[in-house]
Amino acid sequence: MRGHRCTASSRVETESDTDSDSETMRCISCKEYYGRCDAGTCKECYEEASETEEELKREIDDLKAKVAFLRFWSPLDHHITYRSSAGPCFTDVVLVASSDDGLTGTAPSVPVPAHKAVLVSRSPVFKAMLENEMEESRSGTIKISDVSYDALRTFVNYFYTAEACLDEQMAYDLLILAEKYQVKHLKAYCEKFLVSKLNWENSVVSYAFAHQHNAKHMLEAALSLITDNMDKLTKREEYMELVEKDPRLVVEIYEAYLSKQINTAAHKDSSSTKP
Amino acid sequence: MRGHRCTASSRVETESDTDSDSETMRCISCKEYYGRCDAGTCKECYEEASETEEELKREIDDLKAKVAFLRFWSPLDHHITYRSSAGPCFTDVVLVASSDDGLTGTAPSVPVPAHKAVLVSRSPVFKAMLENEMEESRSGTIKISDVSYDALRTFVNYFYTAEACLDEQMAYDLLILAEKYQVKHLKAYCEKFLVSKLNWENSVVSYAFAHQHNAKHMLEAALSLITDNMDKLTKREEYMELVEKDPRLVVEIYEAYLSKQINTAAHKDSSSTKP
Repeated sequence: MRGHRCTASSRVETESDTDSDSETMRCISCKEYYGRCDAGTCKECYEEASETEEELKREIDDLKAKVAFLRFWSPLDHHITYRSSAGPCFTDVVLVASSDDGLTGTAPSVPVPAHKAVLVSRSPVFKAMLENEMEESRSGTIKISDVSYDALRTFVNYFYTAEACLDEQMAYDLLILAEKYQVKHLKAYCEKFLVSKLNWENSVVSYAFAHQHNAKHMLEAALSLITDNMDKLTKREEYMELVEKDPRLVVEIYEAYLSKQINTAAHKDSSSTKP
Repeated sequence: MRGHRCTASSRVETESDTDSDSETMRCISCKEYYGRCDAGTCKECYEEASETEEELKREIDDLKAKVAFLRFWSPLDHHITYRSSAGPCFTDVVLVASSDDGLTGTAPSVPVPAHKAVLVSRSPVFKAMLENEMEESRSGTIKISDVSYDALRTFVNYFYTAEACLDEQMAYDLLILAEKYQVKHLKAYCEKFLVSKLNWENSVVSYAFAHQHNAKHMLEAALSLITDNMDKLTKREEYMELVEKDPRLVVEIYEAYLSKQINTAAHKDSSSTKP
């Protein structure tokens, strides 16, 4: 079936376009001339694609407005401290960074105020904790162990805004919290950030971290980076440390490497046997 | 400047494509042939547009995940009644549909439980009401006048989900509430729905409603529909009622009609005076 045929001769360019020949047409988008091998779409498809793009942009605007509506101001924006936690924000619980080993320093941690309803709706762990009349629900205080005040504050703030200002350390800290309290959206957010920061220098540490905290995308990305650079691997300090600390993870690296080699070989074979 | 020129002859179609001539190229999208007058884009622009589309779709997926995260289960999903409003949802306020003129019937309205923190973050009116220790804040009961229980329930639910199941009556009711409590997102949502339902039959009523509740998009759409059908207007019952009830609104219709006529005439003049 043929379509989009001109019914009349319609050479748009003038005869003074010396370079144009029967094989050139003018691109409706970049306005340059193209030959047959560079042909893209017909006008109808171009217009359809433009409409689709407009629709997608409208959908994005709608979704952004929805996010803005559903976002909370966070109780932390109001600079509320423990003493005024029953104030105009109507918070009914506080989270406190606690460290059994005293690593957080000598000063007692400032409590982070929050709403039980918000915690419960974002985390199944908080839901179980607060709805089942456990100690935390009665006392109105939730202790979070082995976390800095900054990380805890950023963690709670994320529940209200779905946003966090990340650097690598914060992303590591938040991913651990997100995994512990089953906040999937935050975990994916941190993982995406950490994958974007992946490089040869941090690949082995990232691999071990991803393994420990069940971060699949990060694990795959780190493993792929490592198996692409096996010749340099054994000289790295982190490698030697990992052999000492968790040799099973090192075995998995070699297994992945072997599997990649076999696949590549099989691919080459099938290519070379083709006529 | 010329680009996208083939360096070698690259006629893709075989000579057996009897219909193809030097003026046809094949669309990369719909696979059909097109002539010069139907040329769309070159390959490079097509590929760029495809990438843009993919990026926009990824952005939409990200935003949808964000909306899903920020959405609340609503306390209404838990089938909570007044008696258990201090239960596992941690609600701390109830809204009650009240009607001074007794129009909501003889049965007392079922209270709709909610969280002060949610009401305050979605509506500046509730914010002022609840943060300033007014009667409603002390009693934990907010009376909403002239509204049905269903509309109130849907109104509160929207605060948690940014969604509502609308029919025309519900959209009218919610738009009034959204205007009264300054919930802009909901107002825009209802207005969009009502504009989509606009027709000649409901145009005059819609126009008066939009005027009364400051719904600008709806007002413009209704006015445009009315001024396109002025010959039929004066016979309509709603028109005669409006002349009785609020003649200034009728004057505005005539002013808009006149302005449209003048514009059209000016446009015609400038077209006809062109050489």
